[in-house]
Amino acid sequence: MKEDVKAAVRALRQTSGEAYVGSVDGSGFPQIKAMFVPPHGDLRTHYFSTNVSSLRTGQFLENPRACVYYCDTEDIRGALFTGTMTVCTDHEHRTLLWNEGDEKYYPQGVDDPDYCVLKFTAETVRYYHGLEKCTLSVEEL
Amino acid sequence: MKEDVKAAVRALRQTSGEAYVGSVDGSGFPQIKAMFVPPHGDLRTHYFSTNVSSLRTGQFLENPRACVYYCDTEDIRGALFTGTMTVCTDHEHRTLLWNEGDEKYYPQGVDDPDYCVLKFTAETVRYYHGLEKCTLSVEEL
Repeated sequence: MKEDVKAAVRALRQTSGEAYVGSVDGSGFPQIKAMFVPPHGDLRTHYFSTNVSSLRTGQFLENPRACVYYCDTEDIRGALFTGTMTVCTDHEHRTLLWNEGDEKYYPQGVDDPDYCVLKFTAETVRYYHGLEKCTLSVEEL
Repeated sequence: MKEDVKAAVRALRQTSGEAYVGSVDGSGFPQIKAMFVPPHGDLRTHYFSTNVSSLRTGQFLENPRACVYYCDTEDIRGALFTGTMTVCTDHEHRTLLWNEGDEKYYPQGVDDPDYCVLKFTAETVRYYHGLEKCTLSVEEL
């Protein structure tokens, strides 16, 4: 059964163009933002690119607790990953997610000081499909 | 300009079949779940129906800090409401969201002890459209 869930979680992640990224703000309120899913990472590591100056990056620098949610609302299917977010500004991570044309967002190029990569490391995933649900640890992913 | 944002937020909410509801778990991690949007509420009050026994309801009973996110990922448009969630089990709220056929989820009917209504009260909304963003207080909604 766990193999089925793992395959379903992997499929959901691979077909999702966007993920819903959760953070906690300085007053303890949860926050959500839809972010594009780049073609990198595995079931434990999920990457996103954004501005260093964004609200979300500031929240993760203060509090790394995070979640990443992928879902197919038509099929009532979802995978909620819980873990921690690291803000990466090293050249290697920046290069990993850089795409031709990103200069329109970051005029100074791949090492623009306002460009960063959010690296999410999952600890657990909770999978939902209709009324079924189960939680797997990162070791089972 | 605020009138434009208000109209855009209202339109986004009215056309969204589902919302992404954020909570904080007992260890301080943000959590997200897609929930159906019923045809009730205004820009300050957002209702959802769920099980009393669900993980999410337990989280809101412990910590009412919440957010509700509506988005149109194709148009890169989103509205993130931040506020508090109340778990309602009174007959009036249960009746408000009850639909014919819900007995398949709650066999004892509208007063099934496992059926509840989540009532979200917004304090602020942050609106995103492309690279534009702005925050409005509940008084401006």
